[in-house]
Formats: sequence, C-alpha cells, structure tokens
Amino acid sequence: MTRNDCLALDAGDALAPLRRHFDLPAGVIYLDGNSLGARPSAALARAQQVIAQEWGVDLIRSWNTAGWFDLPKRLGNRLAPLIGARDGEVVVNDTTSLNLFKALAAALHMQAGGAGAARRVIVTERSNFPTDIYMAQGLTSWLERGYQVRLVDSVDELSGAIDADTAVVMLTHVNYRTGYQHDMRALSAHAHAHGALILWDLAHSAGAVPLALHADGADLAVGCTYKYLNGGPGAPAFIWVPKHHQAAFRQPLSGWWGHANPFAMAPDFAPCDGIGRALCGTQPIVSLALVECGLDVFDQTSMAAIRAKSLALTDLFIALVEQRCGAHPLGLVTPRDHARRGSQVSFTHPHGYAVMQALIARGVIGDYREPAIMRFGFTPLYTSFSDVWDAVEILRQILDDQTYDIAAERGAVT
Amino acid sequence: MTRNDCLALDAGDALAPLRRHFDLPAGVIYLDGNSLGARPSAALARAQQVIAQEWGVDLIRSWNTAGWFDLPKRLGNRLAPLIGARDGEVVVNDTTSLNLFKALAAALHMQAGGAGAARRVIVTERSNFPTDIYMAQGLTSWLERGYQVRLVDSVDELSGAIDADTAVVMLTHVNYRTGYQHDMRALSAHAHAHGALILWDLAHSAGAVPLALHADGADLAVGCTYKYLNGGPGAPAFIWVPKHHQAAFRQPLSGWWGHANPFAMAPDFAPCDGIGRALCGTQPIVSLALVECGLDVFDQTSMAAIRAKSLALTDLFIALVEQRCGAHPLGLVTPRDHARRGSQVSFTHPHGYAVMQALIARGVIGDYREPAIMRFGFTPLYTSFSDVWDAVEILRQILDDQTYDIAAERGAVT
Repeated sequence: MTRNDCLALDAGDALAPLRRHFDLPAGVIYLDGNSLGARPSAALARAQQVIAQEWGVDLIRSWNTAGWFDLPKRLGNRLAPLIGARDGEVVVNDTTSLNLFKALAAALHMQAGGAGAARRVIVTERSNFPTDIYMAQGLTSWLERGYQVRLVDSVDELSGAIDADTAVVMLTHVNYRTGYQHDMRALSAHAHAHGALILWDLAHSAGAVPLALHADGADLAVGCTYKYLNGGPGAPAFIWVPKHHQAAFRQPLSGWWGHANPFAMAPDFAPCDGIGRALCGTQPIVSLALVECGLDVFDQTSMAAIRAKSLALTDLFIALVEQRCGAHPLGLVTPRDHARRGSQVSFTHPHGYAVMQALIARGVIGDYREPAIMRFGFTPLYTSFSDVWDAVEILRQILDDQTYDIAAERGAVT
Repeated sequence: MTRNDCLALDAGDALAPLRRHFDLPAGVIYLDGNSLGARPSAALARAQQVIAQEWGVDLIRSWNTAGWFDLPKRLGNRLAPLIGARDGEVVVNDTTSLNLFKALAAALHMQAGGAGAARRVIVTERSNFPTDIYMAQGLTSWLERGYQVRLVDSVDELSGAIDADTAVVMLTHVNYRTGYQHDMRALSAHAHAHGALILWDLAHSAGAVPLALHADGADLAVGCTYKYLNGGPGAPAFIWVPKHHQAAFRQPLSGWWGHANPFAMAPDFAPCDGIGRALCGTQPIVSLALVECGLDVFDQTSMAAIRAKSLALTDLFIALVEQRCGAHPLGLVTPRDHARRGSQVSFTHPHGYAVMQALIARGVIGDYREPAIMRFGFTPLYTSFSDVWDAVEILRQILDDQTYDIAAERGAVT
C-alpha cells in the first residue's frame, strides 16, 4: 500500500465529492469529527438568515412565520431516517444529558406502572460515557424507592448483569473511548427476555453507522447532533420515543413546550400527545437551525454508503499504523470485527497524550482520552483515503523521531 | 401632550443614542422586547466569528482557544452586575425552565437536610408563568415525600399562604401578563421569617428593572437572556446561586459540565465547587455566544438610567392611552404605582386579540395573552417617546375606526 494507492481509492470514492459541502481549514487532517463535526459550508448563510431576517426583521413573528415553533419536530423528522426511526418519533432539543434524563425517568415510570413495578436497577457499563452515568445517578439519588445504578465492568458481564431486578438497561451503542459497537439487536432482545426496557445513547452512532431502532428492538434512544451529524458546537441533541411508547412516556422536565395546549396558559401541566411531550423549554433557535445544514448533506448519500467507506477508512488506518508504526508500543483498542466497530479507531500509547499533542501541532487533529488512549474519528463525508495515509505518515515521523513532549500538560474536552 | 412634546423628550434622552446598537426594521414600533428582544447590530459579526473561525477553522481546539469551556461562567459574570449578583454566582446555560428545576430541587434539598426537613410545600401564584408551575409539578410528582405545589390566587393572599409547611416560595418577580412587580425585599424577609427559602424568576426583570438580589434577601434566582437582555431567540438562560448557598446546592441534573473533574472521566458524579455545579450538559455555543452582544450594550448605561426611562415610557403610554382612547373599553391591568410596575403595560379589551392583530398589521408589535390582555413591552435601549406617541395614535385609529377583525384566529407564543 502506497500513497498513490490511497489516491486511487479517493479517485474511485463516490462520497469524495461531498467534501465540498464542508469548509475545512487548509493544512488540517481532521480526525475529531466524533467530538465536534466539521462546519457545513451552508451554515454561515443559514445563520445570517436566522439572525438578520428571522430575528432581526421578523422578530417575534418568526415563531410562526419562520417555523421556529415546529423546528424541534421538523428537524426530528429529518433526522429520523438516519437512525431507523419514523415520522413523529424524534425531536431535537436540549442536551444529550437532559434527553437521557427524560428517557431514563420515562422508562422507570413505564416499569413502575406495569409488571415491572418492583424493578429498581438501572444496568449500564462502568465504561459508558461518564455524563450518562452521572445523569442516572442524579435521577436515582432524587427518587426514594431505592433505585440504583449497577455498573458492569465488561461487555462479557453485561448479559449476566441483566436480571429480574433490572428496570432499564442504558447503553451507549458505540463506546466513546474504544469505538466498540454493541449488538443492539441481541442486547435489546436479552433485556426484553428479562423484562427490562433498553435505552440507547447514539452519540457516537447517529450519522456514523446504520441504525435500525425499530428492527433491533430498542425502546428509547437519545443522541448528539454535533458529532457525526455536523450540527455545530453544542447543537441541541435528539430523543427518540417510538409511537408504541409515547402514550406511556412521562418525564419530570415538564415545561411549556411539552404541554397539550401551551398558549392556554393553564396552571396544570398536561402533556401533549406524541413526541412533543419530550420537549421542555424554549430552544436556542440559532444553534437549533444550524442542525439542518448538517442533515442536508446526508440527503446526498446513504448510511450504507457511509458505513462502507467508514469501514474502509478504519481498516486502512489500522493496517497502515500496524505496518508503518509497528516498532512502537501502540495497542489497538478498537475491535477488528466490523460488526463490533464504530467509526473511530483508538490506540493506546504510554505517552498517548504527548503524542496526540504533537499530532495536533502537525495538523492531524484527533483527541486523547484517559487512560493513554489516542482517538481518531473517521467521517466519510469529508475524510479521504489519502488523509489517512498522511495522518499515519505524520504519526510515524513523530514516533520514529520522538518529537513529542512527555511533560506536556494534560487537558481534554468532550 | 403632543407628538412634538414626545420628540422633545427624545431630544433630551441620554439613552436615545443606544438605539443605534440595534437593527430594527423600518416601519415597526417594537413593543414586544419582553418576549423576544431586538437584535443587537453586533450579533451578525459575532455569529460569523463563531461559525467561520471558531467552529470552521479552529474546530475542537476552540473549547480552549476560544474560551467555549468558560463561556457559561464568563457570561454569568458579565450579567451579574445587572441583577445585583457577584462574580462567580451566575452561569448562563440551559433554559429558564431547566434552571428553575435545578434551583427548586436544590432548595428542597437544602431544606430536607436542615431544620426544614418536614416542610413539603412549594408556594407560588396561580398567575405565575405556567412553565414555572409545570416544572414545579414535574419535580414534586417525581419525589415521593409528599411534596406539593400550593397555588395562591392573589397577591393579597400570598403572605398568608407562607407557613410552617412551606419549604420554598417560588415567585416570578414581574408578572408576565400584568407587569405587576413583587416587593422582593418584603417577601423574601417574610419567607425567611417563616423558615422558607425564596426562589425568584427574573424573566421579566433582568435588564428591565434594577435588582439587588443580595440586599433584598433572595436565596436563588433564574432568568431569561432573550427578553430584555436581547440575547437572541431562545438564547440560554441564567441561574444565580449566591456564594453562601453554593456548598449546599445539589441538583439532580448532574451532567459532565458540573463535575469537579470532568476530564478524569470518573464513573461517579462529584459536583465541582462554586457556581459550576449548576451546569449540566454541553451548551449550544453559537446561541450562547450571541448573549454577549446583548450584554455589551448595557455597559454603556446603568440600570438606574434604564429604569428612569422605562417608567417615563410606561407613564407616557398609560397617560396617552387614557387621554386618546378613553372612549373605548380598555382596562389598565398594570399597576400605576412605580414600585409595583415592571417595564410593560397591559390593557384588557373585549376584543384584545383582534385589536392586537390589527396593531401588528400596522407595524405596532405587542402581543396578546389570555384572557383579553394586550401586552406592550417597553425597552428603553431602543424605544423612543415618539414611538410611544405613534403606537397610541395607531391604537386610537384602530379603535375609533373599528378596523379589527373580531373573528381573527387565535394564536400566541411565549
């Protein structure tokens, strides 16, 4: 495999033309789209429209005329096909943490009102994204029925930890550190066989891997729009409640936007029918509107095509690192098995943090996660095969020449 | 009083030059800044900077280099002087509804851990902004210790409703419909005398009336940045926790941004010290950044000057409506007493909705609130005395000529 081979792959890549829909800085190979997706070129004009015209000129009338009031549902319907959801099942609003809180509370409520009334355990992984665990802890610590969060130490122990006490299994589909992808169908079936509901966090899945929430038996899901969906920094998140769970879906963050008749100004909360009951308060319209620019790009391809390229990119990255950096103490953390791999590759290195800082200084932007993990996200919409070659070549130079500062100060962001 | 008198008032108005910092459309008299503040001229360039440079070019690095990570606290410190708060006591994040939920939960927690352990009642007004009541209902319905929300029917009954069972008094300082302003100092003292904590919603106060949270004895407060603070549609809200309550402040929306060491990725939540523990998940950075453009304008004046002009504007509006529209069935809802008045004036009219639609069609943008209330917000930063004259003149014409459609379809927004 040579750089020319990679250029040949790029020449034959049907997704290569989609890169023109993103503005990426010169001299950067961006392998951190799993943390913050790149900027769609259309975002600037869309922001100008929202700020200058909708806010500036149309002012308060834009709630109706610009469709602000319908935006969480409209964006949800645009996003739904990417995750195997249906119309009227997704809204974009609030943060992933908050949507997880809503979904988890709703799941406990569904169990409490039915045959699962005695179930008190939320099963999740110790290696889950921490904020998911924190939100579960926040919820259970405020309930008084003895709810608890059971942290499972490994994927192998997960099935066995789901038992007759389990109310909800709460898993992140693709692990943020390792890139490990759970078997959604098998785990959902296993949870159901034990009387539990299952809630999936799709933060590292939506826009990265094909999803079939209905076919795979998920009960509830939440996810992020600012990673693989390229919605903008901190853009509002999404929540999925399938039709068959909507009537039973109740959550404590019961704000005006989830009310059956918000403008009647009644003093009692009554949830609206449908997915709207997952909404709470007024949303940040400028950030929310930009989510659509990211979703627009997905109209020009399919999740199957994205997945095929994603696996080709991550296979290539693994192969090149192992060929060209094989003399260095790098440890592959991400599964080789395609079925178990998301759209990132993680390697450990004893000086992972320092090596990553050196990579970033050379324009190869990945990120670092404790402990010792260098994380590289591959986003088929704007990453090329020659990017992969070039990134590995720079990594090789840094490792061979030891041009990294092992005293570099630690710091990282989500 | 003539239009020329109003022009003379404008000529002598020290705040008149501040209007140049806002882009308002031609032909519009905007009296709805209490629902959505006008657009600061600087907002477009700031959005361009965040989107093109910080997101587009600096990408993930902007969490540090552009100060995204510190933004909720930095904006909180900018906002603090406007509400009589101190450095390190305010963060801008999430929605008003969610911040109210956090503050209310924290207040119940403070009581439960101390002498107020038996107190189970949240006292508020039936006429409070509905989402505040909904959030309180959402919280109490998920707790199992028999918490309840006590809705008081009138201001006169409020003091008597605060008793030995009261855990928290939760009030909106300026009523969204009537413009009635509570006596924060007296009610806070009354609540404390009965062993209750008091939580203030400043949605219609921040940027509109001078506030002295410390001097007036408030315990906790939340508020909105997109009304009088002109932060942009749905811009993130704020929460105030004074230093002396921060150690005891615990809330169930315990996301990563409130963690003591968020990048250690520990599996147990531990709140950080200080105001940061009121944070939860990743914020919508574009919308959040625009809040600063609104705050910048306040640097050029004082809340005392804003208040003086606000009272002059609302006095003038009341006087002109009563002089020039006196033959029509208009009923003043807003207190004449300056001490009890916010920065809006509300009038009832039997066909209030239709009259407001006719006003909007003529370029006078106020809004309507059930039942029968026409609501006019006065924002001294960009509203002139001649605006008031012109608005009343158009109202007079509409009423005298009956050019409103009483069959107009209902609809309203927050």
